[in-house]
Amino acid sequence: MSKKQINLGVFLMGTGHHMASWRHPEVPADGFEDFKYYQEIAEIAEKGKLDMLFLSDGLSFNRLSHPAEIVRFDPLTLLPALAAVTSQIGLAATASTTYNEPFHIARKFSSMDHLSKGRSAWNVVTSYYEHEANNFTKEKHLAHDLRYERADEFVEVVKGLWDSWESDAFIRDKDAGVYFDSRKLHTLNHEGKHFYVKGPLNSSRSPQGRPVIVQAGSSEAGTTLAAKTADVIFTAQQTLEDAQSFYQKVKRKVLESGRNPDEVKIMPGVSPFIGKTEAEAREKYKQLQDLIVPEVGLDFLSDYLGGMDFSNYSLDDPLPADIPKTNGNQSRRELIIDLARREDLTIRQLYKRVAGSRGHWTIFGTPEQIADQLEEWIIKEGADGFNLMFQTLPGGLTEFIDEVIPVLQQRGLFREKYNGVTLRGHLGLSIPESRYAEVKVK
Amino acid sequence: MSKKQINLGVFLMGTGHHMASWRHPEVPADGFEDFKYYQEIAEIAEKGKLDMLFLSDGLSFNRLSHPAEIVRFDPLTLLPALAAVTSQIGLAATASTTYNEPFHIARKFSSMDHLSKGRSAWNVVTSYYEHEANNFTKEKHLAHDLRYERADEFVEVVKGLWDSWESDAFIRDKDAGVYFDSRKLHTLNHEGKHFYVKGPLNSSRSPQGRPVIVQAGSSEAGTTLAAKTADVIFTAQQTLEDAQSFYQKVKRKVLESGRNPDEVKIMPGVSPFIGKTEAEAREKYKQLQDLIVPEVGLDFLSDYLGGMDFSNYSLDDPLPADIPKTNGNQSRRELIIDLARREDLTIRQLYKRVAGSRGHWTIFGTPEQIADQLEEWIIKEGADGFNLMFQTLPGGLTEFIDEVIPVLQQRGLFREKYNGVTLRGHLGLSIPESRYAEVKVK
Repeated sequence: MSKKQINLGVFLMGTGHHMASWRHPEVPADGFEDFKYYQEIAEIAEKGKLDMLFLSDGLSFNRLSHPAEIVRFDPLTLLPALAAVTSQIGLAATASTTYNEPFHIARKFSSMDHLSKGRSAWNVVTSYYEHEANNFTKEKHLAHDLRYERADEFVEVVKGLWDSWESDAFIRDKDAGVYFDSRKLHTLNHEGKHFYVKGPLNSSRSPQGRPVIVQAGSSEAGTTLAAKTADVIFTAQQTLEDAQSFYQKVKRKVLESGRNPDEVKIMPGVSPFIGKTEAEAREKYKQLQDLIVPEVGLDFLSDYLGGMDFSNYSLDDPLPADIPKTNGNQSRRELIIDLARREDLTIRQLYKRVAGSRGHWTIFGTPEQIADQLEEWIIKEGADGFNLMFQTLPGGLTEFIDEVIPVLQQRGLFREKYNGVTLRGHLGLSIPESRYAEVKVK
Repeated sequence: MSKKQINLGVFLMGTGHHMASWRHPEVPADGFEDFKYYQEIAEIAEKGKLDMLFLSDGLSFNRLSHPAEIVRFDPLTLLPALAAVTSQIGLAATASTTYNEPFHIARKFSSMDHLSKGRSAWNVVTSYYEHEANNFTKEKHLAHDLRYERADEFVEVVKGLWDSWESDAFIRDKDAGVYFDSRKLHTLNHEGKHFYVKGPLNSSRSPQGRPVIVQAGSSEAGTTLAAKTADVIFTAQQTLEDAQSFYQKVKRKVLESGRNPDEVKIMPGVSPFIGKTEAEAREKYKQLQDLIVPEVGLDFLSDYLGGMDFSNYSLDDPLPADIPKTNGNQSRRELIIDLARREDLTIRQLYKRVAGSRGHWTIFGTPEQIADQLEEWIIKEGADGFNLMFQTLPGGLTEFIDEVIPVLQQRGLFREKYNGVTLRGHLGLSIPESRYAEVKVK
C-alpha cells in the first residue's frame, strides 16, 4: 500500500500571518489590496502542487488589528479572480452563516465551482467579532449556541439547494427545443426555524457535485457541526498530544454521524520558519517579533481574549488568573490561556507568541527538520494535512515550496503532480450525487 | 469642439438575448456556465474598446424562461474572474437592494474595483420576480414603493461606507510602524428606517473613488432614485420620441437633484441585426423568431406582464384590454402594452417581439444603417450611449465590433483606443473624493 499522503493548504493573510510582517523589508506593505500580489502567491502555490488556497474573513475590524484584517479583499471576489489565472489549485473562501443568506452562499460557491472547473470550497464560520452585528442592522451578535443552531440549518439549506439539479438534467436538444429534463429539477421547499427557502437554485450541479465544505470551530458545537457536514476541518493545535486527542475525537464523531472518517480531512494550522540551521530559522522569527509595536500586540491579544482589558497590568505581569468569558470564539480563547499557563508567559511574551502564530503550531528548522515534524504528526495520527500559515508572504511560501516540498516528495508523502483537476480529487474525496439521483449500478 | 462620443456597454445574456438563441446553429448551447465562453466575449468586447460588460441578475427563475435566466453565473463571481483576464473594459454587475445587505454590497464592489484597477460598476435593482422572496425567508416580495424606499436608503449607506477611508489614509511607514492615518478613517454610524450600519468599511477607498452606479428603473420612483444617485441610466425605449422625452425628463431631474446632467449617462438598450443588406439583417431576425417554442414564448410574455393568464385566449387574439396591475416591474409592463396597442399585435406577434428584444429597441440594416440609427439618437438627444443587446453571442457581438465600430470610429463618434484604465474615465465621469476629505486647491 502506498504511503499516507499529506494534504496542504496555504492560508493567505495579507503580507503574512505575522502582524508585523508588513514592516519586514522583503514584504510589499501594500499587498493586501493588490491583485498581482495575490496572483503571484497563487502561482507559486500551484507550482508547488498545494491542495488549496484558503482565505479567512471578517466583516468588521479593530483599529489596532493585523493590517491585513483592517482592509482586505472580499474572499468571494478575490478567489474567482484567482480561479481565472490558475488551473488546478483549490480555492477556499470563508463566509459567515450569521450574516449571510443560504441562497446567496449556495449560489456563489456553485458559481465559483463552475468557473474554476471544480475547485471551490466554503469555509463555514459563525462569525467571530462581536461588532460585526452593528454592520448588519443588528444590535448584538447572536449567542454562541444560537449561532451554531443557525449554522447547522444554514448548511443543510445550502446542501439542499446544491441538489436542486441532477448532474444530467441539462439535455440542450436544439432540434427538439428542449433545454432540460424537468424530472431532474427539484424544489427544496425548506421551512425551518431560521430559514424559509423554497428553491430551486439557479445554478446547475457543479463539477464537484458539491463544493468542499471546510469547518474550523473546535468547540463542542463546532466539532459536532463539522463531524456532520465538513469535508475538511481546520484547527489550531499546539502539541502532538492535543492534536491526536482532537483527531481521535473528531474522527469518532464523524463515524457516529454515519459518515466515513476517511472522507473528513483534519488539517491543523502550522507556521514554519525555515533556515540553513535551526538557529537561523529562530533568528528569522526573532526579527519579526522585534517589529511588533507593543500597543498593537496588546490589543491583538485582548481581541483574542474577547476584549480583555489589560490597562491595570504591566506587560511583564503574568496573564491574570480570571479572564472573563465572552460570546466570542471559545476554543481560541482557551488555547491561548492554556499556552500562557503551560509556559508561564508574561503578557508581553504571550502577545508576541499570539501575534505571530495566532495560536497555531510554530515550527523551526532546516527543510529536513520541518519535514520531520510534519511527517510525525501525519504518521502518529495528529493530522491528515496542514493549513500552512506563513509569517511573511510571498517569501515564506517560496522557501517552503522550493525547499520543503521536494523533501516531502522524496519521502513519498506528497504528490509530484496533480491528479485530476478538482479539489475533491486532490483531497481524495468522492464526488457526491444529488440526493434525488437514482442509485446507479456501478 | 470635438464631437459627442457614444458610450457603449454590452449586456451579456447567456447565449444571446433572444430566448431561442441557444437553438441557433452557431451558438454553444452550454455557454451559460462556461467561463471560457464569457472570457471570449469579454476579450472581443475589449478588442472593440467598448465601455463595459453588463450583467443582469435574478434570484429565482421561471421554468419556462430564457434558459440563460434559469441557471447562470452569479455576476459578482463571474465579473471578478473576467477582471483577471481583461485590463480595460468596465464590469457592471447587478445586485438587488431588496435581498442583500449594504455592507456586503459596498465591500464587494469596492473589492472588485481594487482588483480590476478601477473598472467596477453596480447596477442597482430592487428585484423583479415576485418569488425571489421565497428564497430569502420572506413570504412576500416588498411592495413597489417600500422597495424603492429601502433602495434609496441602501444606496446612501453604500456610498457612506465607500467614504470610510480617505484616498491618502494609508501611510504604511515601515520604520515608524504606522500603517494608516487614523484621522483619515471615518465611522458612518448610519441609523435609518431600514438599516443600522456602523461601519467603517474593511476596504480602502478604491481606484474610482466610488464604483460607478448604474440604475435601470424607469418608473417615477426609479427615475427619482436614478437622478439622485446614478452615474449611468439603463432604459428601454422603443422610439426616438419616447427616448427624447425620457432623456429630457431624467436630465431635468438630475439638475433638480443638484447634480450636473453631464455626469449622468443615459444608455437605452438596443438590439442590432446586421447584414450585407437590410433584408439579410431582417432574415437573421426571422430565423431566430422561428426557433421560439410557442409555450415558452407565451410564458415569457406572461411573466413580463406580471403573471397574466392567457389560457382563455387564442394566440391570434389581440392583447386583452385589461391587463391586471401587479407589484412587479411597472415600466416594462407599460412599454409592452403600449407596443401591442401601437402596432395592433396579436398575442403571438407580441410574444415573438418580446422574446427577442425583451421590449428594447431593435434595429436592422447594413453597418452604415446601424451606425446612422445610433448616431441619430445621440445627436437628437435620445441617448448618451447604448447598452448593446445582441441576440446571439458571441456572433452578434463579433459582427458589431468588426463592422459597426469602424464606421462609428470613422465618423469620430467612438474612441480608437481607451483613454486611461478606469470605467469612470471611459464614461467621462470625474472621480469623487470622500465626503470627509478636505477640499484641495487645484
